[in-house]
Amino acid sequence: MADFFNVISPPEAIRLMSEKVSPVGFETVDTEDAIGRTLAKRVISEENSPSFNRSSMDGYSVRASDTYGASDSLPAYLELVGEIPMGSEAVLPLSPGEAAIAYTGGMLANNADAVVMVEHTKITPTGLLEVYRPVAAGENVIMAGEDFHIGESILESGKTIGHAELGSLMSLGITSIQAYRTPKVAVISSGDELVPPKEKLAKGMIRDINLYTIGALIEGLGASPTFFPRVPDEFDELLEVGKKAMELSDMIVFTSGSSISSRDLTAQVINKMGSPGVLIHGLSVKPGKPTILGFSAGKPVIGLPGNPVSAITIFKAVVDPLLRLISGKKIVRSFKTVEAILNSNLSSTSGRTDYVRVQLKNKNGETFAVPVHGKSNLISTILDSDGYVEIDSESSGVYKGALLEVYLD
Amino acid sequence: MADFFNVISPPEAIRLMSEKVSPVGFETVDTEDAIGRTLAKRVISEENSPSFNRSSMDGYSVRASDTYGASDSLPAYLELVGEIPMGSEAVLPLSPGEAAIAYTGGMLANNADAVVMVEHTKITPTGLLEVYRPVAAGENVIMAGEDFHIGESILESGKTIGHAELGSLMSLGITSIQAYRTPKVAVISSGDELVPPKEKLAKGMIRDINLYTIGALIEGLGASPTFFPRVPDEFDELLEVGKKAMELSDMIVFTSGSSISSRDLTAQVINKMGSPGVLIHGLSVKPGKPTILGFSAGKPVIGLPGNPVSAITIFKAVVDPLLRLISGKKIVRSFKTVEAILNSNLSSTSGRTDYVRVQLKNKNGETFAVPVHGKSNLISTILDSDGYVEIDSESSGVYKGALLEVYLD
Repeated sequence: MADFFNVISPPEAIRLMSEKVSPVGFETVDTEDAIGRTLAKRVISEENSPSFNRSSMDGYSVRASDTYGASDSLPAYLELVGEIPMGSEAVLPLSPGEAAIAYTGGMLANNADAVVMVEHTKITPTGLLEVYRPVAAGENVIMAGEDFHIGESILESGKTIGHAELGSLMSLGITSIQAYRTPKVAVISSGDELVPPKEKLAKGMIRDINLYTIGALIEGLGASPTFFPRVPDEFDELLEVGKKAMELSDMIVFTSGSSISSRDLTAQVINKMGSPGVLIHGLSVKPGKPTILGFSAGKPVIGLPGNPVSAITIFKAVVDPLLRLISGKKIVRSFKTVEAILNSNLSSTSGRTDYVRVQLKNKNGETFAVPVHGKSNLISTILDSDGYVEIDSESSGVYKGALLEVYLD
Repeated sequence: MADFFNVISPPEAIRLMSEKVSPVGFETVDTEDAIGRTLAKRVISEENSPSFNRSSMDGYSVRASDTYGASDSLPAYLELVGEIPMGSEAVLPLSPGEAAIAYTGGMLANNADAVVMVEHTKITPTGLLEVYRPVAAGENVIMAGEDFHIGESILESGKTIGHAELGSLMSLGITSIQAYRTPKVAVISSGDELVPPKEKLAKGMIRDINLYTIGALIEGLGASPTFFPRVPDEFDELLEVGKKAMELSDMIVFTSGSSISSRDLTAQVINKMGSPGVLIHGLSVKPGKPTILGFSAGKPVIGLPGNPVSAITIFKAVVDPLLRLISGKKIVRSFKTVEAILNSNLSSTSGRTDYVRVQLKNKNGETFAVPVHGKSNLISTILDSDGYVEIDSESSGVYKGALLEVYLD
């Protein structure tokens, strides 16, 4: 409780929390089901790929030295001794002066070290191969092990499997990997003003949407959300749900009601869920100041602001990097960004990080960031924008014309 | 068959194919399951959000005019007549000179039009509210309908549902939407040199990986792949599988073997699957020239090159935009891009679009695109790079220092 109510910056908050976060355990996963999973062990190739010298053209496999000096006026003449069919092993050794038909993707004849493209050849009436261009050793060939070689480290731990990683693993016959478990994240919504979206809205009430937006963001990171919707703002009930969530999850996210009392209640509950409890209560940001960050019994517990836009903003700026760490990912922040020119002055308060939603507009080949006006707590401002810019706490504003990094949605 | 063997550019190919492509049908989907789905009907709000005037601060709801001229030295004094608890309807009408406690997210008292922040007030010993700052009408209030108003078009047809769209729909109580069906895409791999990744590799054979990389790319677009692995390069068998795939799918993708004969066989099969058959055989690109595009019985049929890198490249450049159209998406190409400075000269052949894999490097605040060397048909070049640049067919090369758009993976 010592640090209680210290208002700190997002980078400090991430650093403080990161020190105590550790990745979930790992398990064996079939490679074909591994898209989006994160490697827990480096992968070493146990074979060469390709496993044989492979032609990358249709033509003739040759000994390169037999073609040296060949030209239109003075072709090289080689004896055609056969072909290596696709998918067959070469049982055909070439002696000097010999060539064999090669197919794209097929194996080179034994002793051959290059392929002459079919376009640079002709067959004479007597069945000899006329070659009009010299080839260098290795030309039009993918050598055994040129894509991956035995003992090579293919993928590092912490790498997330995408289509190219999947293909690379499969090309080496690596059909299972060690991957971090999919982190489970509990999402607990509380706030006496909340009703489920399906129910009729009484006056003074609002629909519970943080459950859905935060759930979608969690899934977008490859983690698995569990939902505990609309817990009343009542200490015992909230604590009971919090403890249950702790048992089932690797990380707990509260989205509290909007009022101070609801937020304070969340902080009290987090402190009771386990030591040390709340570490950070309040971030020097806009929007999203009323954020709570802590640990209970070794698990990170986050109290997001009740306002939907603030909750989304803080998730992206602070929770996303923490969840990546828990997931075992190497890259702590991998937002896609675009550089854009600010098209109007933006004022900011020094000592506070501002997240400002912007639209991107292209004009004469330049990309401009146009701040989306309107109150920062309207979700419609997110719909109307392409991403956000971050104005750091040292800055008291940014002038029109400045080059800013836009974090894309 | 008239256009057979015309080699055309990717933009022309996309234009030609797009004219004949139509989106799949639509269905009713629960909003909570709609992440990644694409709207088939525009969504109109049938209510105001918020549905009431909502305080965005903790403080006191007031009639703004009662605070005009208030200052530290000359505060306004208002009578406190009660509070509006969170989630309750305001049953408290304010007369001139009155104020009521307001919570962030709570309802304003009737007749109130602004909220004074608690920081700018004090309670006198006699229980009066001292106000030190004037507020304007609407200050610290989200007015009814300010986020979304009745009759407003919230989301257009063709929009894909992400976290913000989900939240916006839920905030309006829109718990079901009309979404395009998830397109089904058949992936048929053929080629006599292919073996499944789990099997031992005989000499001359390679593992079938296009099935996995292309499947992952299809899923990444929110479509659903069906796999038909390793069909022999035999006309009748391939045609039978092709016809079966046609019945089950909205789009058919062949990944042929690498040899010319395997590709020609695919073209013959596509022509027999239904009229008009092959429209485009060969694109003026590197890598990926041996690409086939056509239609059979109204369904787009694609023959991707056998080389894994070519197959991925052509999927991204040509198939991706077509699949987006089939999915009903408005945005035909929504790659994330980054501008980067080319760090070495890149030569290209005029009349051909080149796709060159690059790594991104940051140096002194500038982003550089570093071409990944090595043969363009090694999947390891994709692992080692962050994306690719496109050098269009008019260009015969790009000089070091040029600003290029990098399509990120």
